[in-house]
Amino acid sequence: MILSIPASEIEQRQQRFVETLSAHGCDAALMFSVTDIFYLTGFNFRPSERPIALIVDAQGAFSLFVPRMEVEHAQAYAVISQTHDYPEYPGMTHPMEYLKDVLQVKGFTTLSVGVDADGYSSAKGYAGPAVTSLVPFANKVSIKGLVERQRYIKSYREIELIKESARWGNLAHSLLVKYTQAGGREMQAEGRATQEAAQAMFATLGAGYRPYGSPAHAFYRGQIGPHSAFPHSQNQNAQFKSGFNVVSQAACDVWGYKSELERTMFIDHASSTQETFFNHMVQAQDIAFGTIKPGIPASRVEEEVQRYFKDQNLTQYVKHHTGHNLGLLNHEAPFFDLGDHTVLEAGMVFSVEPGLYVEGLGAFRHSDTIVITDSGMEMITYFPRDFESLIIG
Amino acid sequence: MILSIPASEIEQRQQRFVETLSAHGCDAALMFSVTDIFYLTGFNFRPSERPIALIVDAQGAFSLFVPRMEVEHAQAYAVISQTHDYPEYPGMTHPMEYLKDVLQVKGFTTLSVGVDADGYSSAKGYAGPAVTSLVPFANKVSIKGLVERQRYIKSYREIELIKESARWGNLAHSLLVKYTQAGGREMQAEGRATQEAAQAMFATLGAGYRPYGSPAHAFYRGQIGPHSAFPHSQNQNAQFKSGFNVVSQAACDVWGYKSELERTMFIDHASSTQETFFNHMVQAQDIAFGTIKPGIPASRVEEEVQRYFKDQNLTQYVKHHTGHNLGLLNHEAPFFDLGDHTVLEAGMVFSVEPGLYVEGLGAFRHSDTIVITDSGMEMITYFPRDFESLIIG
Repeated sequence: MILSIPASEIEQRQQRFVETLSAHGCDAALMFSVTDIFYLTGFNFRPSERPIALIVDAQGAFSLFVPRMEVEHAQAYAVISQTHDYPEYPGMTHPMEYLKDVLQVKGFTTLSVGVDADGYSSAKGYAGPAVTSLVPFANKVSIKGLVERQRYIKSYREIELIKESARWGNLAHSLLVKYTQAGGREMQAEGRATQEAAQAMFATLGAGYRPYGSPAHAFYRGQIGPHSAFPHSQNQNAQFKSGFNVVSQAACDVWGYKSELERTMFIDHASSTQETFFNHMVQAQDIAFGTIKPGIPASRVEEEVQRYFKDQNLTQYVKHHTGHNLGLLNHEAPFFDLGDHTVLEAGMVFSVEPGLYVEGLGAFRHSDTIVITDSGMEMITYFPRDFESLIIG
Repeated sequence: MILSIPASEIEQRQQRFVETLSAHGCDAALMFSVTDIFYLTGFNFRPSERPIALIVDAQGAFSLFVPRMEVEHAQAYAVISQTHDYPEYPGMTHPMEYLKDVLQVKGFTTLSVGVDADGYSSAKGYAGPAVTSLVPFANKVSIKGLVERQRYIKSYREIELIKESARWGNLAHSLLVKYTQAGGREMQAEGRATQEAAQAMFATLGAGYRPYGSPAHAFYRGQIGPHSAFPHSQNQNAQFKSGFNVVSQAACDVWGYKSELERTMFIDHASSTQETFFNHMVQAQDIAFGTIKPGIPASRVEEEVQRYFKDQNLTQYVKHHTGHNLGLLNHEAPFFDLGDHTVLEAGMVFSVEPGLYVEGLGAFRHSDTIVITDSGMEMITYFPRDFESLIIG
């Protein structure tokens, strides 16, 4: 059972990243992206007002710049050669002054340096100078998106973690269905399903399980009845009523990796109008599944889905594109979108979720997680998708 | 019972912000901060690859720039005069091209415009141009931090929401204590406590409760035994053992507002060494409580705490400053930090959490949420802080 990424694979990621850096004309790098730092070092931290940065020096050695508070934590968990630290933020001397000293000692003034941002940024009370005002690099290259592109294609172990996530998301979803009944409220059903699924997960996986996020959970996020017409609704603590369509979401973090499972369901019964929209949505999702394969642009999937909706005079009910990559974040590039021409490759993991939104009636959207294979795609999520199975309550 | 901020108070916030803008030489503003947009409009949204921006025009009217997907959602929930929308990201035409048109129509090329960032940014697959390359404003003023400063001082209703948060955090914490026993594992106790507290909360508050975040929850975040020496540890699914010190955390979102409650506790029994460190930590927290009052710089609180630690030869065990502001985010400026000289004012809400970290033994840190009053401070969290009460199991 695979429940984490070993240090050896982190080291392979680093090696590959150093090669990419070199191909982009960089001798070294300075990076602030929380997700990329986790990906490249295995160090999972809580971002706060205190800056954290990853430094790749001219020898290809990886080190972390952290607050005093995180020194031992980084040394225990990160695959790095060294930590550099500063006392505190804001502190008597701004952390960026300490970073400046580290970069100068490492000779960054004479190097071509790749940077992923103008500096550390955080909504949590941080303010500080831009990187360019810190140290005059011989050359500065923007490498924003470089690690993200490396993350596009998942390794065998990453896919196993995503499959593990899907397994427990499926349990949470089954329990959500069990506890959803007319007269009940969304957070009651969600809390019970989440708690039972998580406990079963802990008992099954044992002590080796690290969420680096949230254990198994399932929820509706306010997508209850007509309110589900807002695709990114917020929890409303709404009441279930007979005949409502509801849209669920279930997921689980396994060492930070995610999956996505969403189902359109009907409480007790559905009208013929609801069934018609439901069937169109399922048909659109099937068209996407049938289109996805390596070698085509991501936009092709969206074109095929939109063609179907247009042919059926449903375009007015469409509010968003068909899907997104996912992994360490719940939304990542590339996208199944008319404007995204990234060529699909084996190992990419996507959500597939064409949706229809009908005012007064609500949403029709399933979301499944798939991985692109050498010849087409493989489903990762597996909860039933058919109309009969999704009359609940 | 106060469970939300009414539109009238959002409008007061807008009015005050427009006055501040004017005082900073701005005719208009363009803003991307998710938290600030919620604060100024009441629109709580899930940030994704799709840019969202708040526009304040020269007439002081607030409007939102959103993806097609969020139009009706914004219109239903945001206190704004208008929405502007674009089809999708990345889309056939980049969303920033649509934003450019909106800004041109609003005459931003002839205005002095306050901007809080160089453009929309998101880790979730977004890439796009800087604001400056979009529209040539007559003048550009950085207003980063301006709304954050407005958020420093909480209104009566905001404090009531934070108190409501503390109430349910306290219940979750009580249940966490109940379910923590030698031999058990952290996620089992956390799941049970969180689920029971949340259900009691729903039953008590009824249909009017909106979390805009997470309902009542309590957890250890890996701060079990010696592992608690990492102040920002991650969940380890660790096992409780007799004699361990553990550090808890309990909270609850109420319409997005948070509180913070943390306790150092001992499973079954504590050694005299543990008791000594515990007592020093409580003494340091008491010194902070005794120092906090309006009119003094935030740094004064940290100076007093650090003086105590120095007098007691404990400085080697200190890893972080004494506290932070909080409200819509769990960490906000200003900070009880040697370098933060912000003058304390009535209505500011802070965590107070001096900590001692002992290798091989673990952490000693309580965190309480307080609000500064006209003459001193008031405790918002109220779980027992004394040694006897915190021997559990």
